Amino acid sequence: MRTAPPATSTDLYQLTMAAGHWQAGRQARASYELFTRRLPKDRAYLLAGGLEDVIEYLTSFHFTEAEIAYMRDIPSFSAVPINFFDDLARLRFTGDVWALPEGTPVFPDEPFLSISAPLIEAQLVETALLAIVNYPTSVATTPSRMAEAAEGRSIVEFGARRAHGTEAALIAARAAYIGGCVGTSNVEAGMRYGIPVFGTVAHAWIMAFDDEIEAFRAYQRTFPDNAILLIDTYDTLRAAGRITEAFAPGEIAGVRLDSGDLGELARGVRGILDNAGFQSTKILASGDLNEWSIAELLASGAPIDSFGVGTDLTTVRDAPALGVVYKLVELEENGAVDFKMKFSAGKATWPGRKQIWRFFGEDGLAAGDVVTLRDEPPPSTGAVPLLEPVLRDGKRVGPPTSLESLCERTRLAVGHLPSALKGRTAPPKPYSVEFSEEIRRIASELRAELT
Amino acid sequence: MRTAPPATSTDLYQLTMAAGHWQAGRQARASYELFTRRLPKDRAYLLAGGLEDVIEYLTSFHFTEAEIAYMRDIPSFSAVPINFFDDLARLRFTGDVWALPEGTPVFPDEPFLSISAPLIEAQLVETALLAIVNYPTSVATTPSRMAEAAEGRSIVEFGARRAHGTEAALIAARAAYIGGCVGTSNVEAGMRYGIPVFGTVAHAWIMAFDDEIEAFRAYQRTFPDNAILLIDTYDTLRAAGRITEAFAPGEIAGVRLDSGDLGELARGVRGILDNAGFQSTKILASGDLNEWSIAELLASGAPIDSFGVGTDLTTVRDAPALGVVYKLVELEENGAVDFKMKFSAGKATWPGRKQIWRFFGEDGLAAGDVVTLRDEPPPSTGAVPLLEPVLRDGKRVGPPTSLESLCERTRLAVGHLPSALKGRTAPPKPYSVEFSEEIRRIASELRAELT
Repeated sequence: MRTAPPATSTDLYQLTMAAGHWQAGRQARASYELFTRRLPKDRAYLLAGGLEDVIEYLTSFHFTEAEIAYMRDIPSFSAVPINFFDDLARLRFTGDVWALPEGTPVFPDEPFLSISAPLIEAQLVETALLAIVNYPTSVATTPSRMAEAAEGRSIVEFGARRAHGTEAALIAARAAYIGGCVGTSNVEAGMRYGIPVFGTVAHAWIMAFDDEIEAFRAYQRTFPDNAILLIDTYDTLRAAGRITEAFAPGEIAGVRLDSGDLGELARGVRGILDNAGFQSTKILASGDLNEWSIAELLASGAPIDSFGVGTDLTTVRDAPALGVVYKLVELEENGAVDFKMKFSAGKATWPGRKQIWRFFGEDGLAAGDVVTLRDEPPPSTGAVPLLEPVLRDGKRVGPPTSLESLCERTRLAVGHLPSALKGRTAPPKPYSVEFSEEIRRIASELRAELT
Repeated sequence: MRTAPPATSTDLYQLTMAAGHWQAGRQARASYELFTRRLPKDRAYLLAGGLEDVIEYLTSFHFTEAEIAYMRDIPSFSAVPINFFDDLARLRFTGDVWALPEGTPVFPDEPFLSISAPLIEAQLVETALLAIVNYPTSVATTPSRMAEAAEGRSIVEFGARRAHGTEAALIAARAAYIGGCVGTSNVEAGMRYGIPVFGTVAHAWIMAFDDEIEAFRAYQRTFPDNAILLIDTYDTLRAAGRITEAFAPGEIAGVRLDSGDLGELARGVRGILDNAGFQSTKILASGDLNEWSIAELLASGAPIDSFGVGTDLTTVRDAPALGVVYKLVELEENGAVDFKMKFSAGKATWPGRKQIWRFFGEDGLAAGDVVTLRDEPPPSTGAVPLLEPVLRDGKRVGPPTSLESLCERTRLAVGHLPSALKGRTAPPKPYSVEFSEEIRRIASELRAELT
């Protein structure tokens, strides 16, 4: 796993359309853009995700012989000439791609990714691009919200077991780290991406011993410097008390609460630990936590030092589907460039290849974005362009950004968002995204042509 | 991708616990079972998923040299002797596994999977097993509900682009097929699993031509026998009319509606097609459909012949997280077998390795299950045992079941569920699952010992 998805990781209709274009002998170059029309429930921004995997996918795009043989035999292709498949076998992605760096705050109708490539290439990659971008974008956005709720306390991603498969778990661990988690419990993610890994102990460990305190002792012997003991298997407060009797302060790095009334238990446990001189022993809470329950716990004064979050983060339980779409914005054919847009009610799109410019106020906070055609001059001095070239003629532009840099850039970018966007519900007045006069003029012209 | 997940696809705490057990020199053999405590919202049953991937994962389980080197350097392992890692490098999964065949209807507290293995092995595989089983179980259950809503009309899985990554898309396509879809749009799933693939055409195809009818013509030339035309890009009814003028009946296999009021449009389009002699042209509907909207469309008499479902199916939007857990039920050590259970409020478990027996009434429908210890005699004649041995000493028992057989078995098993379980909301009286006297006796004894 975690090799790039195969070229067959696509919807059949991308292939039927490719065959159709091929048969019609079209030599067009198409520009597509990838964006969302709406924000998920309660969100006021998204953090762009998936770019590194997008690059990996596009630069390794090809059909294997076995894939070609399979596709040739699909019944609906019976009337498609064999030469089409010969051409497919030679096909590579040769296009240009501009994109938002991972972790960049992005808003509805703003492109995450802008692709220009021969029509068939641009068409074939749609399904995988959406599948690659949707999920890490949803995940990255979540810890940034949770971090706000946790008021600076650290959050670790614990959700591998609930993700939609082991690959999703890995994608989630990386996206969560970019979005603001301090680490993950996922060993593979630690190894592959260099993300700090964290682990405590499970109920099964405790249950594998006749007595809880034996289980604590055995664990602490193996991890003398960093044992975090799970204390809720039988009686949480009693377990905390027994720990203070069995160990010396400093021998136990932390305790974990995973069930019950976490706020009340944390207060009880903190009292027991402090009374016995265990002030340095930290309290970690876990168990179906999200930004809402974290905020509630802290509002109630729960003395919790860090949080482990799983299910809500890796399944994005409150908004598991992100409606990123991929739409045609320009078509260059026979020497002429046509702007393209979609008019369907509720599904209209903006034409042309774009750039996003972010404006910052005197307080240093983002004040709004203006979206222009890519070749328009900057809308004003001081505006920062967000889309960067990442592939030229199918080849990567520049080296990958390190994960640590992405985390740091994300932290800064989120830090520069207005605080109104950072609540747990969407603000009444959303962030301002305007489209340039030029884009609006083109859209009006296209609309006029249609009627 | 789609090779088995690596052994590092696990939570760090599985490794810390393994190190703890190793250091304590424990030679125990542990039995764990995997089950849910509750059904997701609105469901009255689940269809077990993921077994083929579980077998693949367990039979190929091993740590590579690079993985061992990475783990040895994790800071929290600094006090763990190097021999532990030598042993890890040699570790393979040598346990026994009993499981429900994929697609088997399963209820709360009933084990999907029962594992007996040396303690460390059983511990290390927990995270990946849960990640492998959770998602396809959620997905497989959904089309079985949608098929009920669609009253026999066919449903195709179209959701690759919304799944949590391209691997999730592939898992979903297979699980959806087992659960009752007739096929998928996912080419990779078609190739890898032999699932029938379906495809129509996208709005981008229509937009790539100056005139809609040109787009229809070009597509129909390439796919003369099976063209399904997307007709909602501009004006759905007008497009249907133009099709009847530009083509002969029989030249167009179907039309697809993807936006607007699908019921009203289907009625309008059907009228236009029928009046022009296009009775054989089918209507396919898609666009954020689920069991609720499908049922509503059909209740309103919408003349729709088949449905494409995407987002709700592959993200399991209304219940994206399934709480499958993995709990210790027996521990064999120094020649003695101890039953194990968990007592935490709301998280209690039943002890012992189990078998599920399904009873059928005179109407042939499932009347209830009885869960016994595996070695108990059948609770009565006619009861069918559901868990089957799948691995013995880490080796596969018998050949894999073909996907077609799994689909057929699932169709039969769902057909034998009482109709009260098949509504779109959970019935007031859930399906009866009883635990044998022997299991209840053991649980009482363990509870008594604790207090």
